Amino acid sequence: MKFNIAVLPGDGIGPEITQQSVKVLRAVADRFDHEFNFEEALVGAAAIDLLGDPLPETTLELCKKSDAVLFGAIGDPKYDNDPSAKVRPEQGLLKLRKELGLFANIRPVRAYESLIHKSPLKPENIEGADMVIFRELTGGIYFGEKSTAEDGRSASDLCTYSVEEIERIAHLAFKAAEERRKKLTLIDKANVLETSRLWRRTVTEIAKDYPGVKVEYLFVDNAAMQMILNPKQFDVILTENMFGDIISDEASVIGGSIGLLESASIGTENALFEPIHGSYPQAAGQGIANPIASVLSAAMMLDHLGLKKEAETVRMAVELSIKLNVCTIDINKDNHYSTERVGDFLESVI
Amino acid sequence: MKFNIAVLPGDGIGPEITQQSVKVLRAVADRFDHEFNFEEALVGAAAIDLLGDPLPETTLELCKKSDAVLFGAIGDPKYDNDPSAKVRPEQGLLKLRKELGLFANIRPVRAYESLIHKSPLKPENIEGADMVIFRELTGGIYFGEKSTAEDGRSASDLCTYSVEEIERIAHLAFKAAEERRKKLTLIDKANVLETSRLWRRTVTEIAKDYPGVKVEYLFVDNAAMQMILNPKQFDVILTENMFGDIISDEASVIGGSIGLLESASIGTENALFEPIHGSYPQAAGQGIANPIASVLSAAMMLDHLGLKKEAETVRMAVELSIKLNVCTIDINKDNHYSTERVGDFLESVI
Ligand SMILES: CC(C)[C@H](C(=O)O)[C@@H](O)C(=O)O
Ligand SMILES: CC(C)[C@H](C(=O)O)[C@@H](O)C(=O)O
Repeated sequence: MKFNIAVLPGDGIGPEITQQSVKVLRAVADRFDHEFNFEEALVGAAAIDLLGDPLPETTLELCKKSDAVLFGAIGDPKYDNDPSAKVRPEQGLLKLRKELGLFANIRPVRAYESLIHKSPLKPENIEGADMVIFRELTGGIYFGEKSTAEDGRSASDLCTYSVEEIERIAHLAFKAAEERRKKLTLIDKANVLETSRLWRRTVTEIAKDYPGVKVEYLFVDNAAMQMILNPKQFDVILTENMFGDIISDEASVIGGSIGLLESASIGTENALFEPIHGSYPQAAGQGIANPIASVLSAAMMLDHLGLKKEAETVRMAVELSIKLNVCTIDINKDNHYSTERVGDFLESVI
Repeated sequence: MKFNIAVLPGDGIGPEITQQSVKVLRAVADRFDHEFNFEEALVGAAAIDLLGDPLPETTLELCKKSDAVLFGAIGDPKYDNDPSAKVRPEQGLLKLRKELGLFANIRPVRAYESLIHKSPLKPENIEGADMVIFRELTGGIYFGEKSTAEDGRSASDLCTYSVEEIERIAHLAFKAAEERRKKLTLIDKANVLETSRLWRRTVTEIAKDYPGVKVEYLFVDNAAMQMILNPKQFDVILTENMFGDIISDEASVIGGSIGLLESASIGTENALFEPIHGSYPQAAGQGIANPIASVLSAAMMLDHLGLKKEAETVRMAVELSIKLNVCTIDINKDNHYSTERVGDFLESVI
């Protein structure tokens, strides 16, 4: 089969990890006799530097007409430490999510048997942990009206949600729960926020359509604690944009490295695949970044394109690399492989 | 010396833990020859049930004229699961914080030597962890305008901050850092939120007045991960209301039990002392709730009243109870003491 894949390497370690995924995808195309056309485009700080725009029109157009987008990472400290910068790399990613209508960000989290001892958590607490986080991605406080007073003395961000925005991702999450262990946990702050109460009300309604799924409700503060105390209690987590951002990064400690966590961002027309880690600028260009989160994101992409066997093959390659400790320094301290060599290994076993 | 202390037991386990603190405070008064006048008042679900108001005027008046408020806990599941309830227990606490002007919530977190093995985290990761979280408590999305559309199909919450709101707590946090290990970490989401950029800008300005303090900036998603990966990196954490809520509950896993974490909420005129744990309704009335977070909150109260030696005595009593394992079931599984017996022990060693 033939697919057009937009590749947006972005900033920091984005380019080097994405390169490994492209390599792996080429190997998949070879082995399974597909044709993947990769086309690269600029986004983030890289795009600002060259074109003054974190999401150039040509990049957006390319993404829209592609079958899928493979995304690297975004962000540059020179903007973080300049709170008055007018253009920021992150705007590129946020606009892309919005323009492509990528309302559901799906983040699987599991403890790899052979990595359990790397986690800061005790093995008995995480053994067998296996959850998937459904984070709403185009609403909430990320996209509500923002303002700063003329005199710069106050600022505001508006968090808004509509029933429709909640419903579409909730249905995806409930369906996933039906295919899994049949439990869904809604994370909100319904004891304080009006939007959270809308989430709770809407999800309670929708739950009636999925009688086989057990629904639990957790306040986000309690959830941040439960994620560490007893991560095995979670199957499918459903939550709004900001809480999903925080809780999923926190959950990365279960796997032993944030360098392992992939994600899929799904809309009705488009789909984008990206690691949940950031651009990690301190590591850029040093060949130490873990490419696995990106490669696993590529596997989610294959799944999305209907190439299940191919996706499974990539996942098996990753499991093998972890088992054999062909891993970057975040996982294999004593005898680590470079980003590229991990990519080479994965390519070689496809 | 003579002090008037308002006691607001609240909901769930609130009454039983607060009772232990009052007992301990009476022992302190006896031993150090002070006069503490305790006056109780209703708040939360308890107040709604009796008076239809989560913060009755008489309660507020009592708090205003007292030298300090000892607060239990708030919240009842019958309101959590009713997203359309018009009156909620939490409104009582939020209004109390606002009316008393308690803008700074101070939450110390440390790993107790003898409890390190109870934590879900590996000992080597938490040994020596010792931080204090400054959470802004009367601003942000908790208090901004809230609305739900007439048809109930959408909702919003506004997050606002002013420079003044940030400055007053930032100064407290910087001063605390000067007395500690001279490091302050601001947690925000300045790559997305306008209010976070205001925080970053304001804190960067204020930092110039405290040249001895090293300032670091962390995005909240990364912070949620760093809290588990390497909690020892933190000394003073400064953050806005919602992030402080999430991050401090998460940090409770370091101590091994949320039942250990005290807090002080400080304003220019008033001060309130409360455990960071909630009302834990499933445990109410069973004598299994850990009173230590409340008792340590009482110790913070003594400090605040200028009674340093007295506060130290209470803390030593707590450390002794932990060392001797005179503890409730959350900490001492096999041979646990009841809430009351822990209180009795603490009283007896004052
Ligand atoms: C880069 C940033 C805007 C982004 C977010 O917060 O959504 C990132 O942290 C993520 O989780 O994908
Ligand atoms: C009960 C609730 C409103 C409160 C809060 O979120 O502030 C509690 O979680 C806390 O942290 O003190």
